[in-house]
Amino acid sequence: MCEANAYLLTDEGEKLVMESVDDVIPEGDGLKLVNIFGEQKFVNAAIHALSLVDHKVYLKAVEPTI
Amino acid sequence: MCEANAYLLTDEGEKLVMESVDDVIPEGDGLKLVNIFGEQKFVNAAIHALSLVDHKVYLKAVEPTI
Repeated sequence: MCEANAYLLTDEGEKLVMESVDDVIPEGDGLKLVNIFGEQKFVNAAIHALSLVDHKVYLKAVEPTI
Repeated sequence: MCEANAYLLTDEGEKLVMESVDDVIPEGDGLKLVNIFGEQKFVNAAIHALSLVDHKVYLKAVEPTI
């Protein structure tokens, strides 16, 4: 299995958002993360960078568009 | 190994940009793709979506900021 862990990049460093992520799907102002167990989580972020061999997906918060 | 293939989403469908991608790193107005062989490619695109169990990274072209 080639899932990865999703981390939100903050001023304080990397914050783990979800483990074993399979799908990352744009939705509204953010992303829907779906892990290999089918669990879903919505984050107000965009995909920033990937390090797939290290199983890492880096997200960056986006300002809400009001 | 958990590399993936990177596809650019276009009006005509998915276009394979690079195989066996390991790192995707933001650089300027686009992304630097690095595959597991150390080869690099720059694309004017952002990371749009991921389907990691299917080994797919979807990119979307960005308009240059002039």
